[in-house]
Amino acid sequence: MILKSRNLNWLAGRPVVILNAETAKKLNINVDERLGIKNLRNKKTIYAVVDIFSRLVQANQIGLSREVIGALNTKDNEKLEVHPSELGIAAKLIKKKVSGEHLTKNELNLLVSEIVHNNLTESEIAYFVAAEKLNGMSFDETINLIKAMVKTGNQLKLTSKIVADKHCIGGIAGNRTTPIVVSICAAAGLTMPKTSSRAITSAAGTADVIETLSRVDFSSSELKKVVSKTNACLAWGGSLNLAPSDDKIIRVERILNLDVEPQLLASIMSKKIAAGATHLLIDIPYGKSSKVESKSGAKKLGKKFKKISKYFNIKTKVVYTDGSRPVGNGIGPVLEMLDVLSVLKNNKNAPQDLKNKSLFLASKILKLCNIKRSKKVARTILESGEAYKKFREIINAQNSKQENSDDFDNRVKKLKPSRFSKTITAKKDSKILEIDNKKINSICHVLGTPETKSAGVYLHRNSSQNQDLRKGDKIITLYSESKDKLEDALKFYEEFNPIKLK
Amino acid sequence: MILKSRNLNWLAGRPVVILNAETAKKLNINVDERLGIKNLRNKKTIYAVVDIFSRLVQANQIGLSREVIGALNTKDNEKLEVHPSELGIAAKLIKKKVSGEHLTKNELNLLVSEIVHNNLTESEIAYFVAAEKLNGMSFDETINLIKAMVKTGNQLKLTSKIVADKHCIGGIAGNRTTPIVVSICAAAGLTMPKTSSRAITSAAGTADVIETLSRVDFSSSELKKVVSKTNACLAWGGSLNLAPSDDKIIRVERILNLDVEPQLLASIMSKKIAAGATHLLIDIPYGKSSKVESKSGAKKLGKKFKKISKYFNIKTKVVYTDGSRPVGNGIGPVLEMLDVLSVLKNNKNAPQDLKNKSLFLASKILKLCNIKRSKKVARTILESGEAYKKFREIINAQNSKQENSDDFDNRVKKLKPSRFSKTITAKKDSKILEIDNKKINSICHVLGTPETKSAGVYLHRNSSQNQDLRKGDKIITLYSESKDKLEDALKFYEEFNPIKLK
Repeated sequence: MILKSRNLNWLAGRPVVILNAETAKKLNINVDERLGIKNLRNKKTIYAVVDIFSRLVQANQIGLSREVIGALNTKDNEKLEVHPSELGIAAKLIKKKVSGEHLTKNELNLLVSEIVHNNLTESEIAYFVAAEKLNGMSFDETINLIKAMVKTGNQLKLTSKIVADKHCIGGIAGNRTTPIVVSICAAAGLTMPKTSSRAITSAAGTADVIETLSRVDFSSSELKKVVSKTNACLAWGGSLNLAPSDDKIIRVERILNLDVEPQLLASIMSKKIAAGATHLLIDIPYGKSSKVESKSGAKKLGKKFKKISKYFNIKTKVVYTDGSRPVGNGIGPVLEMLDVLSVLKNNKNAPQDLKNKSLFLASKILKLCNIKRSKKVARTILESGEAYKKFREIINAQNSKQENSDDFDNRVKKLKPSRFSKTITAKKDSKILEIDNKKINSICHVLGTPETKSAGVYLHRNSSQNQDLRKGDKIITLYSESKDKLEDALKFYEEFNPIKLK
Repeated sequence: MILKSRNLNWLAGRPVVILNAETAKKLNINVDERLGIKNLRNKKTIYAVVDIFSRLVQANQIGLSREVIGALNTKDNEKLEVHPSELGIAAKLIKKKVSGEHLTKNELNLLVSEIVHNNLTESEIAYFVAAEKLNGMSFDETINLIKAMVKTGNQLKLTSKIVADKHCIGGIAGNRTTPIVVSICAAAGLTMPKTSSRAITSAAGTADVIETLSRVDFSSSELKKVVSKTNACLAWGGSLNLAPSDDKIIRVERILNLDVEPQLLASIMSKKIAAGATHLLIDIPYGKSSKVESKSGAKKLGKKFKKISKYFNIKTKVVYTDGSRPVGNGIGPVLEMLDVLSVLKNNKNAPQDLKNKSLFLASKILKLCNIKRSKKVARTILESGEAYKKFREIINAQNSKQENSDDFDNRVKKLKPSRFSKTITAKKDSKILEIDNKKINSICHVLGTPETKSAGVYLHRNSSQNQDLRKGDKIITLYSESKDKLEDALKFYEEFNPIKLK
């Protein structure tokens, strides 16, 4: 069928065309199905996903998204030939994986490239994710998937011989060790270009927390300047286009909040390889309400990380930490940053669990990079204020060339939890038995995190503090910028009981 | 976040809302993700899928599809509260199935009901289909799925004690036995309210073929009138809303052209139960290029049909027929109807393979319904012209009250293959070894079937004819209403060689 182009020029995120319902009926095509399109003038072709919207286009027209206009180089009113599309090659590969067959290196390259170029629908990617989860991926497939994910994105090419990195598989509320660990390691002389994610299921990601004090979205060249100045950075990975297929696959995993192990391995390792890591510490917290429940499960996963790291020649240490409850007192971007600053400044009421875990991780990285007496070095750097100094340097470098110490202090002064709050106290003498990570994260979402940086909760007893409560002792304070949200969160708290007392 | 409603009122096929890119960014939501929406006036709520289209709505607005307007009863400029949605209950059930657990009767009821009400995205359904395929479905799950699929649609309630039905699992080009079988059985006095599908992967479905002579889209009450007048009908199932979840699931299976056995069983059996079948013949053709390749595979599938039928108290016979190549000479709606008429009229050049298969199936149904000497009865009805008379009756009843024999003959006179054609002949003395069903169907699609009813191919040697060719003998004629398509089909023919010669 020949249709006339109508450049609607919206940014759809992938090639999308809009048809009139009458045209769609004639073509026997439905919403979300695919159409092959050819510009008869220049013979350029593309596949696009169909949307039906009769108010926008007439029966002889086809509305084009910016992605389609770019690919076909269309003007308005050009003749385009369209035909419902047979299965694309990438879809055939997904079908192959669904059927239990293995995919080769070339096939995975093609598939990942099609994902990056937005040529697959979310439903097609959902089939791939389901097949990865249910049929598994062989070691070779995982390696080839990682290579394909790295190849289809940017790579940070730093000149340092040693590039240290850390990764925590996440799931623990609070647990904002990264700013502290990076500050210690960078102060010890290591190059540590740390890139982090924003929150997916948690109340805050490291990038959300750092953003309370500085920019986090950098181009590669901007990032390299920060690193050359300070040895390190605390940036958001998203703007660097490292392994960009990962974000698209994660979006599809999120449809059902699925944990897909081969994809988890590929997601983490592809980003580390793209960032040029030579030495890597992986933290796998385990425990009742964390991503991995048992220590044996954590160790099984850790072995896979080690095997992949070995293949890619990355010196990797895996540590298994307590993930049974939140780490630190504050949960939410601002509240977590306040904890981080408190540890870095060696305040005497700083959360000791966060401090101890950060020291533990930092010393492991130092040791991995052949720095002797690593435990002592880490503690000395933190307690002498060297780490805090390094952190200020990094934040200032991330803000602009003109930043000075006053600017830093002014930014810190502005860090305040949200204005509406409610504190829950013990109704009788009791003891904290359990704090559920997932439920705490959910409450924070209700309160407005991570969009509202000042929202979140403050746990008055972190895991290193006395768990015995006397009647009237504070347990948790909820913060929100909205009274309604605070109200909703209180209801949630009462219903789901995230903190178990005895 | 509070947004103002803008009733865009397009029919999206499911609840869809349109956001401005700025708003989407604030909500941290992407295209195809879900938004919970509450009309603050009447407290009605719905979940909808997000589309981003800044030209249509401003940052404080939300554009609503007709489905959302209906559910929320919105006027323009009303205040709607929106929030990115947590996993819906149905999505949680899909996740449960993906995780390898079984779903209960209540869970399947809820899931199917959500599918029927368009409350699941195609990606979510894709996860369900993948889980059905890769984790399988227990017998109980299959039964409960079928019950849920029946319950969420209409049911034809006919008064006859015996309601005969047939089903072929398909995949064979041509093979248009249904109009002949139904005519024979109805002429023998059986009630046979046959509903059929349109083409999915084949060149034509029975509904497409019947449509060359009569209407096929009826309401239940219209259909019942046709059946009470003629004992039978040859209708399209789609307009009757029998097991409507099926169509939605099939759309998702088609994304990868997947065959998912539990869904195939549920799809067929739910429609038969909804149509009130008491006696059922299932035809499972097997062979190299058909859906089931081996006889043992066909028998395994047949056993499952029998087990389910027994549960639902339907007397079922399964037959396993030769599916190694097309049946009849014509492939495509008009060309197949010409074959059917030729058999019904007892023309001496009628395709004998189509005739014999139709007689075989009709006699099996008659026998199943306790009609004695069924083989002889079937042949007598066909060869005496009784079946043809019955077919005319059914077609006339499906057209209108005023139809008479002249109208029927006029309609038949108009049946002509497409005007552009090309016949391929044998280049030397040779023998037909193999005709590939899938490739023949693909060529027909290239030629324009099923949309162009007169398009398709004519095989000059059907399976019951001499397979030896002399140089210059006709092998196949290709028909199309478009010279370009004919050209494309010829290229396809040369490249894919659907008819193997020796």
